[in-house]
Amino acid sequence: MFAGVADVIRMDSPDRVDFLKNLQAGGKYEGVVGIYRHNISADHIGIFDQEIVDALAESGVKWIAHNGAGYDQIDVLRCKEEGITVSNTPGAVDDATATTALYLMISALRQFSKAERDARSGLWKSQLRSGNAHDATGRTLAILGLGGIGLRLAELAHAFPMRIVYHSRHKAEHAPEWCEYFPADRLDEMLAIADVLSVHVPLRKETEGLVGEEMVRKLKKGAIIVNTARGKVIDEAAMIRALEDGHLGAVGLDVYPDEPSVNPRLFDFPNATLLPHMGTETCDSQKKMEIRALSNLLDYLTKGKGSDIVPEMQ
Amino acid sequence: MFAGVADVIRMDSPDRVDFLKNLQAGGKYEGVVGIYRHNISADHIGIFDQEIVDALAESGVKWIAHNGAGYDQIDVLRCKEEGITVSNTPGAVDDATATTALYLMISALRQFSKAERDARSGLWKSQLRSGNAHDATGRTLAILGLGGIGLRLAELAHAFPMRIVYHSRHKAEHAPEWCEYFPADRLDEMLAIADVLSVHVPLRKETEGLVGEEMVRKLKKGAIIVNTARGKVIDEAAMIRALEDGHLGAVGLDVYPDEPSVNPRLFDFPNATLLPHMGTETCDSQKKMEIRALSNLLDYLTKGKGSDIVPEMQ
Repeated sequence: MFAGVADVIRMDSPDRVDFLKNLQAGGKYEGVVGIYRHNISADHIGIFDQEIVDALAESGVKWIAHNGAGYDQIDVLRCKEEGITVSNTPGAVDDATATTALYLMISALRQFSKAERDARSGLWKSQLRSGNAHDATGRTLAILGLGGIGLRLAELAHAFPMRIVYHSRHKAEHAPEWCEYFPADRLDEMLAIADVLSVHVPLRKETEGLVGEEMVRKLKKGAIIVNTARGKVIDEAAMIRALEDGHLGAVGLDVYPDEPSVNPRLFDFPNATLLPHMGTETCDSQKKMEIRALSNLLDYLTKGKGSDIVPEMQ
Repeated sequence: MFAGVADVIRMDSPDRVDFLKNLQAGGKYEGVVGIYRHNISADHIGIFDQEIVDALAESGVKWIAHNGAGYDQIDVLRCKEEGITVSNTPGAVDDATATTALYLMISALRQFSKAERDARSGLWKSQLRSGNAHDATGRTLAILGLGGIGLRLAELAHAFPMRIVYHSRHKAEHAPEWCEYFPADRLDEMLAIADVLSVHVPLRKETEGLVGEEMVRKLKKGAIIVNTARGKVIDEAAMIRALEDGHLGAVGLDVYPDEPSVNPRLFDFPNATLLPHMGTETCDSQKKMEIRALSNLLDYLTKGKGSDIVPEMQ
């Protein structure tokens, strides 16, 4: 893909010290202008915090093509200050992640996670009450953040149909008319009518703990929370309290504040469906993300500018 | 609901002997003309086989209003001979059961069942390969039996969209044009293009073992089987062999040949999602089924004929 355009150097540093050393003059990464980044690099060199961003800027990096929709592992404001552009891969993950949210919603509504655990331990359905299980059809799904993933979930859930309501900072231009917008001054109203609240906002300083005690308690008793965005967008302690006292009917989680560790308290709730951050884990979306991130980098190298520049830089 | 129309006698016999005895003259069920039946009655008096049907006929029963879509626990041909009409509750279960099939399909495509088991045992996603997980979007769903449940699943899966193909004995009159019909002479062709085969035929003598060695092997390698109909429609041994040798990519099962027992061999496959017959287990569909079955009985009592008479009697 880059033949004749640029030399490709594989990042194989075992740790941050090695990585930073090799960015300097004479190191194996000298002369790098663009980076294709995957979150698994953090296992070795850590996240792209100020220290790494500063070192990248100094060595001449101008573009970071991140593979993923969420780019909370990159200090994008520092990148902006240092003249490094960051692109991500929106769109490519929408389908797989929205499908994960749909699955978690159905599981939570229907008690399917506990049902399977019971079936596997020989209890069959003796411990389940159909009175606690609900159809999706006719119920209200509230989407917090109607970006690409939220909109895709809206389409899938509309097939039942469910009533679809959403809150974003701004009304979504391309949302179909059956997606009802609730601006900030009507957020409480939206929370009060939601049977399911599905979280689709990126993790930023302003969104950390956004779904906190106050928001959780404004949901009706028995409501369900689904999270396929980032664990820290929810105040986990507030969510757990609401599971303990029965205010929340169930949760479906793909993300956690401190991945890969999962708060063991969550394992105790029969009404919790817990996936290990599988939102984009399909061969199809992995391929789409890879192609999109590498295309952004290629465009930068050949045309001087790539697509999918993150909103903070636009 | 029956006030002023009929006396309601609750069936509380602890066993079959007691039930048969009380159907006779002088017994507490003497004079019963219509029966509201739920499968849980089989826990006490067994299924409605020839012995029970004959006893019911002799005592004057004319209508059995069964609560459920599947009525394989009732010997309907014997009922027909004896002049007893049997009604079921089609439609009422469509939404909940099709949602269960949708859930099982997503789980099987995405490895979500194993993912949750791994997350709960501290493995996070280290044992999973995204290469083995697939988006539903763009793939082909083959529906075996396009009755109410199959058609409802078609609608839900069409939202991705998936290509929807189906085989029934007859072309479904009300199927939308995007449901492609494959008659018997093109069944092999349908099996060869299916990424997912979802079973929605009732259990009858002709459908027992319908999905057998031959049909399973005509599916492409890596295909998925979903069953929310009845366990015996699939030849379980053939399905297990195909899981063992990797011909089948995954299965999603809600029903088993010998419920409530589940063949323990199934527990060993990482790519099996196993629910304890939860298809209709929602408060919404239980209520719909109850109302529908009781309405059928009420109509018989007040108008001489109820709705939802099973096809064998029409």
